[in-house]
Amino acid sequence: MDRTGYTILGIDPGSIKTGFGLIEVVANSYKHIENGLIVPPKDMVFKDRIGFIFSEVCEVIKEFHPDVIALEDIFIAKNAQSALKLGHVRGAVMSAAVIHGLPLFEYTPTHVKQSVVGHGRAEKYQIQAMICTLLGLKEPPYEDAADALAIALTHAFSM
Amino acid sequence: MDRTGYTILGIDPGSIKTGFGLIEVVANSYKHIENGLIVPPKDMVFKDRIGFIFSEVCEVIKEFHPDVIALEDIFIAKNAQSALKLGHVRGAVMSAAVIHGLPLFEYTPTHVKQSVVGHGRAEKYQIQAMICTLLGLKEPPYEDAADALAIALTHAFSM
Repeated sequence: MDRTGYTILGIDPGSIKTGFGLIEVVANSYKHIENGLIVPPKDMVFKDRIGFIFSEVCEVIKEFHPDVIALEDIFIAKNAQSALKLGHVRGAVMSAAVIHGLPLFEYTPTHVKQSVVGHGRAEKYQIQAMICTLLGLKEPPYEDAADALAIALTHAFSM
Repeated sequence: MDRTGYTILGIDPGSIKTGFGLIEVVANSYKHIENGLIVPPKDMVFKDRIGFIFSEVCEVIKEFHPDVIALEDIFIAKNAQSALKLGHVRGAVMSAAVIHGLPLFEYTPTHVKQSVVGHGRAEKYQIQAMICTLLGLKEPPYEDAADALAIALTHAFSM
């Protein structure tokens, strides 16, 4: 890994799919490094899914050595059950940040959409399209990976 | 640490106070090792509280080398906000288990009360009293630490 810039790992947390996206900031330009999805096997029990996500986030950190983690924040959840699940995933990501000594910043979905697309109610496909434009990608990443790159870019823009 | 038995770390998770309790099982007897509370400083922001709890659970594991973690399970939360908070703490505990290669078992509050006191609607003070009896303690531990010891005992009884 031969990088001179500031590397941001964006994470869009979810117990079914957790998106991640890495960008490098050099001067005022943004370079795409990697993106992907962490998808625990469907037959895994919940506690093991959380362990799986924690381990995979740690692997991504060990491979790409980000300087910071930018995580999607949430204030309102649809219901207690989905809030409980999402909380576990966010707790695992926060733990991965602590174990690797990385600072962690949080951005709400509205802030991310506003920052990347220009308005807070942007659709998923608009985020994917804008990510392609901003990072010079030929193929749009999966939705959750595009969201993760958008979170990383939001942190870059806020610096 | 000179122990020959099987050591169980019970954890009663909470973002304000997380109780922990360690017991050792030798043959059919149960020995109290330690109990306490993990209390993040009040002025800490939420993400740092989760990081604090994760780090402290890791410290307890490093100091007492448990063989297993027994964690209070939850299916129903009062509301989405408290579910979200509790989820983070449980996610951090699960991550601490993974990083130390420890198996993790979960027990519902009703199961724990049934197992330790004999009925599933036991009050906190009844758990504290029973913990003193079962583990030969002269002073009752704090409520959340007593709950953590009860969770550890529940795992011991289920073995």
